[in-house]
Formats: sequence, structure tokens, C-alpha cells
Amino acid sequence: MSERPIITFTSDFGSREYYAGAVKGVILGIAPNVRIIDISHDVASHDLLEAAFTVVSAYGSFPPRTVHLVVADPGVGSERRAIIASTEEHLFVAPDNGVLSMVYAREQISRVVSIEAEHYFRRPVAPTFHARDIFGPVAAWLARGIGMDQFGPEVENYVRLALPPLRRLDDRRIEGIVLHIDKFGNVITSISPDEVLRILGREPQTIHFLVGEERVKAHYRYYAQASSEEIFSLQGSSGYYEIAALKKPAARLLNARRGTRVEIILEPSI
Amino acid sequence: MSERPIITFTSDFGSREYYAGAVKGVILGIAPNVRIIDISHDVASHDLLEAAFTVVSAYGSFPPRTVHLVVADPGVGSERRAIIASTEEHLFVAPDNGVLSMVYAREQISRVVSIEAEHYFRRPVAPTFHARDIFGPVAAWLARGIGMDQFGPEVENYVRLALPPLRRLDDRRIEGIVLHIDKFGNVITSISPDEVLRILGREPQTIHFLVGEERVKAHYRYYAQASSEEIFSLQGSSGYYEIAALKKPAARLLNARRGTRVEIILEPSI
Amino acid sequence: MSERPIITFTSDFGSREYYAGAVKGVILGIAPNVRIIDISHDVASHDLLEAAFTVVSAYGSFPPRTVHLVVADPGVGSERRAIIASTEEHLFVAPDNGVLSMVYAREQISRVVSIEAEHYFRRPVAPTFHARDIFGPVAAWLARGIGMDQFGPEVENYVRLALPPLRRLDDRRIEGIVLHIDKFGNVITSISPDEVLRILGREPQTIHFLVGEERVKAHYRYYAQASSEEIFSLQGSSGYYEIAALKKPAARLLNARRGTRVEIILEPSI
Repeated sequence: MSERPIITFTSDFGSREYYAGAVKGVILGIAPNVRIIDISHDVASHDLLEAAFTVVSAYGSFPPRTVHLVVADPGVGSERRAIIASTEEHLFVAPDNGVLSMVYAREQISRVVSIEAEHYFRRPVAPTFHARDIFGPVAAWLARGIGMDQFGPEVENYVRLALPPLRRLDDRRIEGIVLHIDKFGNVITSISPDEVLRILGREPQTIHFLVGEERVKAHYRYYAQASSEEIFSLQGSSGYYEIAALKKPAARLLNARRGTRVEIILEPSI
Repeated sequence: MSERPIITFTSDFGSREYYAGAVKGVILGIAPNVRIIDISHDVASHDLLEAAFTVVSAYGSFPPRTVHLVVADPGVGSERRAIIASTEEHLFVAPDNGVLSMVYAREQISRVVSIEAEHYFRRPVAPTFHARDIFGPVAAWLARGIGMDQFGPEVENYVRLALPPLRRLDDRRIEGIVLHIDKFGNVITSISPDEVLRILGREPQTIHFLVGEERVKAHYRYYAQASSEEIFSLQGSSGYYEIAALKKPAARLLNARRGTRVEIILEPSI
Repeated sequence: MSERPIITFTSDFGSREYYAGAVKGVILGIAPNVRIIDISHDVASHDLLEAAFTVVSAYGSFPPRTVHLVVADPGVGSERRAIIASTEEHLFVAPDNGVLSMVYAREQISRVVSIEAEHYFRRPVAPTFHARDIFGPVAAWLARGIGMDQFGPEVENYVRLALPPLRRLDDRRIEGIVLHIDKFGNVITSISPDEVLRILGREPQTIHFLVGEERVKAHYRYYAQASSEEIFSLQGSSGYYEIAALKKPAARLLNARRGTRVEIILEPSI
């Protein structure tokens, strides 16, 4: 392992609460050299989809062998499993509730193990705070170089959430949803250029979007290409198409929310 | 001292403001190897009780010799003292305004010193920002290994806030208050199992709670045991009893706020 | 360079979003030993003045050779330049949109270079996320010790925003504005003691303020000198005069916002 291993930390704990801090204390007690990088602790409470979107958008920016700790865990204390998932380059520690589903969809998952080796836990395990007593310690031991096989048996039936499906409407239209509204009011859709190519078999040229009832006709490479009253689409940095407005919250202008129906329409090139 | 000393940092500075960042800059100028772990900077402004609850809930998760910097300081610039408090395993740096009262209540405090050695301060000391100019530097020097005795004389009359008292109502009822509402809407009470045992002389069996006028009859070990319409109590990870609802904010359902009257009732076991 | 270089990070990305986390991942991939210190990610979206105020208030607390990464970048993807600015002790990496204007106003700027050496970028560069693909990597390479001259040619015509001007009204009055409202509701004005001396040619003695239509007659050294119903001025830790109220949000009491007109009046000493 690296001399300076990295653990990223994504949760719905809230930056106001002591929860994330307590988890970090436990991690540092086990792995004093680890660097803990917060992705977000302000994921909406119990919102597995938002946590999934957050981690899938961030993890690829980190160096190989980073351990990604992801905790949105409404089933804490119940029989839901705790898991470690590995891809070729990254490790993920999370409850087995589907919060890693977007990672599974994007990556060749090498292996998932069920966390069962209790001697790696903090004792006693509080039934309401597995992040502190199970997930955090396991992430710390992984960062110290303990192999994932040491934590429990491989499992195949890990939970995959039904992610918002893309639906082919005809040979030039695909239906998706709004996946996320960001702090700027940008509307991140569930539709990506890769998926358009896969589903419709061709590269998009002239693109329109339908967001709810509103048609968005302009498509740009970056925000500042737009004029000030315009709503437009662009390819966002997370890989998905976004709908934006110059220095304004497009989500409010379009009355869009997470889950709002979105349609991409490939117009004949002009 | 450790090669990689840890300073935790709890304040009411707000994560939007530059204040916490400036304090960290000063700390790193003195102790380049220290790791600074934020607990929260979103404690309500001047709220000593919330700061006290936050730090008492978090510090025990950190390794021995961690320095805990706690700043909610409405009296900054006045004659209120600055102090270092030590327990067997931890050090605390804070204004002497009672913000450490919950630590004092839980721990055998070994010693408290008044911070007076001005050569450890950042000069000039701004009368409105002792966190940057006094508390931060002192925490950094402690983390570097300077003994607490070097900062000033021991004091006995440090400020203890009157913490929300628990009141024995009869041989099966204790009255307390709501100590904190967390981001999930969980209602953390000021009543703990230890205190019930101490005050009523017996282990709780069947437990009811009264929160304001509402009676809460179910008691579980973890959230997911509840059905979706149920309000229930459980023993929270901070050591206190909590009132919760499955994926819903119990505080809103019960119209509970910090300070709302709470009663625990030990019903005869069935 | 230091063995443990420091990068501070100020942005309008929002602490809820994955954006800041992704930037940190890229930085750590390039400079594994760097310490990244968040100043704020909750600057109002596209608010160059708030970002400027935040960074100018924080950077001076950090050790020499700190790299300050500042991203509020409504023109991302357009032809606006990316720059590195150096003062005698600090380095700044930012879009050339004026976000460093308050640093320029305070410091002897040694040199500004235009960032053009694309081999230091993360590839491909997303036109909507230069923080991750350009600014972050450049900050990381600077922290590793690459000289700023390696990134591009020196430029003279970097963008300076017209900062809120101070206007001399007569020989005892200066007009400014509200620069910032902080989390406590303190009203930070654009007027500093240094500027009063420079503009009026004398040290302020008895000071009144006019905030909008409200006259503020008390002036204290620190908050706790005030009585509980009083609104008063003091010299804040950022160097500017502030208007405050004891444990209350002065901004709300005065109906003050960012940009509200403020006047300082030097009354004859009594």
C-alpha cells in the first residue's frame, strides 16, 4: 500500500453533526497516516440515489487504490450486509443497500465481499452507528493494506438498485429523468452521449431536450457561450447531459426536480 | 508526542466563512505535521450547549493525546479566561465559558490551566478573533508537545454550566429535555441508561417516553425495526436515548425542539 | 519546496456537491504529500466579490509558499485566461476574472503568468470543469515545486475588478458599502482604519456609522463590551470596520445587505 493512503468519505450525516468527525477519529486511530477526503456529508437523508450519484461522479478523480467510504444507511443495525467492492483501481466500503449501484453500472466490478470479520470492528458495535464501528474501521484496515479477502466471503447477490432507466421512444428520441439538481441550479439528466450512441446507434448531432413540458433547443460546449436569457444543454463534467442557464438556476426556470421526465431529441442536422 | 498529532476543531464559525480556514493556517504555520479534523463549524451561533454536545459526542472516538479545539465564544475579547483542560487521554482548548461542561460531567478532569503565556499567541491579538490568535496557536503548540503547564497556572474555579438537569418524578419516571435535534430529525434526549440506573436504581425494562404531550411506546435497538408510521425510542450512539421515526424527522412529527420537556417512564414489564 | 506543501481551496462549488472532492482527488494524484485546506466552498454561486473577500481575509494566516486555489468561474470554458499570481510570500491560482482583485489591492503583486502549458493539465479537459482539469493540477504542480514561469508567459493586463470604492464626502465623512454579512449577522463594511487615515489624513477618534438610514453611535473593541440591546461598530478581524449586536444578527436589525450604503462619520472627540 501507499505510504499515504487515501480514504474518501461520502455520507448523509450532515456537516453540522458530529457523526462524520467521530468516524474520522476511529479511522485515524487505526491508520494514522491515512488522508481522509470529504466528498460530501450533505447528501439528503437516506437518499441512496444522491449518494450513488455523488460517489460515481467523484471516485474516478482519485488515484488508484483509494478506498471510498460511502454511508447512506437507513437499514443500519438490521440484517442488511456490509460490503467491500473492488474494481481494477478502487475499493468501496458501504452498506449493501444499492448505494454503489452506479459504480457497478459503470465499472467492471472485480469482486464483492461480505464484511463479517468482527475483530476488525470497533467494540461494542452501536446498532445505530455502523459507520463509526464497522465501515470506518474496515476502510482504515483496507487503507493499511489488509486484503479484502480477510474481511469475509465473496458474494454474488449484492444489491443493485433499479437505476433510472433510459427508454428508447423512437429512432431519434430517448426518455430519461433528472438525476440531480446541483448548487448552481444546473439540471443533470440521466442521459449521456455514450448511452445515446449505444441506444440509437449514432452520434448525436443537433440536440434538443424536453424537460417536463419545456423544449430546450440550444446546445453549447460551455456556459459562457449562452446569452443571458437562454436555457441550453451541454455535456456536463460528470459525463451526463445537463440543462443550464447563464448564472441562473435552470432548475427553477424549468420547474425541474429530481425525477422530472427528460427527453433527448436528435434533430436532423441543419 | 506523536509524529502525526491530531487537532479536532469544533466551532460556530460557519462553513461558509473564512474564519475556520484562517485558524487552520495559523495552526499549520506552528505545527506543520498536525492533522486538523473538523467536527463541525455549523454549531448555532453562540450556542454553548450545542457546541458542548458536539464535542462530548465526538472526542471519545479519537486516539489518546488528541487536542480538541472548541470555539463558541460570545465573550471573545473580554476578561473571560482561555483554558486548557486535560483528562487522562485528551486535551481540550477552549474559552472558559462552560463550553466544556459536558466533558467535565463525563470525565475525570485531571487538570485545568488558565492560558496566560502570551509568547505562544499570534501577535497582535485581535480582540474579536481569539480562535486565530490564541486558541489555535495554543492547540498547535500543545500538539507539538509543549506541556500544558507551560501555558499558565492551574485553576480550580473554571466555569461549569448548569447542564439540563434530570429530575426524578417518582420511582419510575424521570424528567429531562431534548438536548439536540440532528439532521435526520432524530430527537436526542438528555436521558441516558446510565442515569436511569443511577437515579431510579434499576435497569429500564419496558420504556415509554413522553415528548411534550406525545407518548412514545415503542422501543427498538435500531431504526429499521420500526414500521413506517411508527415513532419509537432507541439508545442512540451518543449514549443518550433518542426518539426517531423510520426515514422521517421525528422532531417534526412530535413538534419537538431543543429544550422540549421529555419524560421517561419505566412501565411494568409485560 | 516544503516537504508538506499546503494548498488552500476556496470555491462556489457547494459543500453538498462532489465538485470540490473531485478536484482534491486530482491534486492528490499529482502531489501526494500536499495538505489541502478548505477555506469555503459555500461562496454564493458566481459571486466574485464574495470569493475575493473570502480569500483576502484568509490567505495571510497561512505560512509562506502556500498555494491558494480560488475558483468562482462563471466564464469556465471560454477564452478567459487562467492565471498564477505571486506575491512575496504566496501563490494564487485562479481564473483571470478579477476574483483576486482584493489580493491585488492589498499586496505588492510580484508577477502574474498566464497558464498555457497544457502538459500540466488533466486530459481531456472538460470545458465545464477547469477546476478539476486545469486549476487543481496546476496548483498541485506548483505545490510540488514547479516554478510559475514553467506554466506560461508573464502578463500585465490581468483583470482587476472595480472594487467597491470609498468616497470622501467631506473632511470627516467617508462613504462605503456593506462588503459581507457573516454567519453571525455581523455587517462587514468596506471601510478600514488604514483607509480612513489615508483619505481623511487623521486617526479616527469618536466614530459613528450610518448604515442605510440607521445611525450607529457606539464603538467598542470587542463584542462583550456592548449591552444587550445595543448596535455598535468595532474593528473586525479581517481589517475592516464591522457593525454588530451582542449575540444578535446586526444585519437583520439594520436591514442591511451586501451593497447597502455605509458612511463613517468622525465626530469631534468629547
